[in-house]
Amino acid sequence: MSQTITLEEIYLPVEKQLAAVPDTILDILSTRNDLTEAVVRYFFSAKGKLLRPALTLLGAAVKSSASGPEKSATRLGSAFEIFHSATLIHDDIIDAAHLRRNLETVHLKWSPQVAVLVGDYLHDQAIKAVFETHNQSIVALFLKTAGEVCDGEIHELKERNNFRLTEDEYLEIIDKKTASLLACSAAGGGLLAGASEKESQALQNFGRYFGISFQIVDDCLDLTGNEDEFGKTLGADLAAGVLTLPLIYLLSVSGGKKREAAEQIFRSPMTPESLQALTGMLREEGAIQYAMKRAREFSDKARQELAVFEEGPARRSLDRLLDYVLERNR
Amino acid sequence: MSQTITLEEIYLPVEKQLAAVPDTILDILSTRNDLTEAVVRYFFSAKGKLLRPALTLLGAAVKSSASGPEKSATRLGSAFEIFHSATLIHDDIIDAAHLRRNLETVHLKWSPQVAVLVGDYLHDQAIKAVFETHNQSIVALFLKTAGEVCDGEIHELKERNNFRLTEDEYLEIIDKKTASLLACSAAGGGLLAGASEKESQALQNFGRYFGISFQIVDDCLDLTGNEDEFGKTLGADLAAGVLTLPLIYLLSVSGGKKREAAEQIFRSPMTPESLQALTGMLREEGAIQYAMKRAREFSDKARQELAVFEEGPARRSLDRLLDYVLERNR
Repeated sequence: MSQTITLEEIYLPVEKQLAAVPDTILDILSTRNDLTEAVVRYFFSAKGKLLRPALTLLGAAVKSSASGPEKSATRLGSAFEIFHSATLIHDDIIDAAHLRRNLETVHLKWSPQVAVLVGDYLHDQAIKAVFETHNQSIVALFLKTAGEVCDGEIHELKERNNFRLTEDEYLEIIDKKTASLLACSAAGGGLLAGASEKESQALQNFGRYFGISFQIVDDCLDLTGNEDEFGKTLGADLAAGVLTLPLIYLLSVSGGKKREAAEQIFRSPMTPESLQALTGMLREEGAIQYAMKRAREFSDKARQELAVFEEGPARRSLDRLLDYVLERNR
Repeated sequence: MSQTITLEEIYLPVEKQLAAVPDTILDILSTRNDLTEAVVRYFFSAKGKLLRPALTLLGAAVKSSASGPEKSATRLGSAFEIFHSATLIHDDIIDAAHLRRNLETVHLKWSPQVAVLVGDYLHDQAIKAVFETHNQSIVALFLKTAGEVCDGEIHELKERNNFRLTEDEYLEIIDKKTASLLACSAAGGGLLAGASEKESQALQNFGRYFGISFQIVDDCLDLTGNEDEFGKTLGADLAAGVLTLPLIYLLSVSGGKKREAAEQIFRSPMTPESLQALTGMLREEGAIQYAMKRAREFSDKARQELAVFEEGPARRSLDRLLDYVLERNR
């Protein structure tokens, strides 16, 4: 499917601040330690989608007038991106992934040791930068979120190769590991701009539903995407024994021999052939369609949360971000 | 050498509060996630020396009268112990160690994945608990410290197998990776109890010199200790290519063939025989004695910092802790 909406268009209302994010990230992470510096420059040389800073900036913009707290929102959004990056670097060790944003992963290019420690460094510097907002609501929300992200990841790890994982449990896991930080990013921006309790809650809910939708699509792309466009190793979840929504659905609708065959593929070391066989089964049972339908439902719930804000470019961008996620192929 | 001073005696002035630390740790780390819970209970079932909470409690007690901020100091000290534990769990992955406090390491008993994530969880919960003191000086000091610890570890990693590492660089590394958290622990306690700028600086300096002395002794024990008493894998630094003070000294005083022989042992996979050969060379050159002399010098510097405090049981305990470290065999 070709993408009709681009992130550039969506990010337009906060374009200038977002352009400052890469340098702000390097500034927050600057160090005299040249190994750390090298890893940081390498990792951030590949541009991600910057979803978290964008949500922070849009969360601030949806609330405040043109001359909002731009600089501090840029810094806060950068901190969230750094925190997210720390989890990616650690995840890639855990998943033994070889590709991240079309670059060789840190644990392969350097070593798992370097990846553990640089991940810890990013983690600490992110927290430090959030703390420097001196906004107690933001700090408290972020620390709660950091715990949730970690909890979600450990939960996911525990449920690897559990063929009885339910959709509800899956949703709880992705809510914690992915959606919570997106919720915190959006609400953090709002709180900086002086959002009311009701508004910051709406931004949190928006981020949460958006995040669940985003992760479901990500999990579909892991099974059906184009590796070059996706920029990550395809079938990585599968290879790591992580059950995602399409597979949970496939197992739930398949009985007897079919279910056995799917489980068998799952249990064996992944090959291009077995990945193909599995995607065939997913197609046959409409598993990807089912997962995408669920993603759309969460997207719709996110959209409803925007109603508390006045019409305007920032709100429109948050709205269109929901469409972007459903259409994306990377 | 038999130990003439016991930790129990030294800890006497804060005995009651220190006894509450293990439960406080479990309380801070309590979670509905049963995998995390199992790892936490396992890891903390082996009692460490609780040096960090002890320093926090003594740092508070040296400053305040009997009815000091006991409960919050217990919680703060527990947070520092949790943070320290997070680094141990990550270190053990990095060093591929098999033993920690006479228990199998987390990455072996579960997996490196679990160790990475549970380490992250401990890390986050520690920061959260420190933040909950709502004491900005403590939070700022701690966040700075967390960055230093990580920086020190990355620095150490970078210098592995660097046979030209100088004593000064070694001291800088252990100052950051070990001494900074001990300094923060002591000063954190003091700050909770209302220490003046001068007093909290004295506690920081005390912790720093104490920490350097402690780490030098630890590095000597890694080469000469008794594995059962030490509770860690002997020769672990060596096996990981980490140069410590006795080895740096040995290389600096050995010329020609001797130096080559030492480097050769260092480069080859470690065996009980090569460890023995190396300890022989260390003995011959008085390398352990030299390192212990340096440890004593830092110990003396630490002692001088205590002069700003009034005589009393807490100050006496800090003083005796310095002797304990020099005499310890575990």
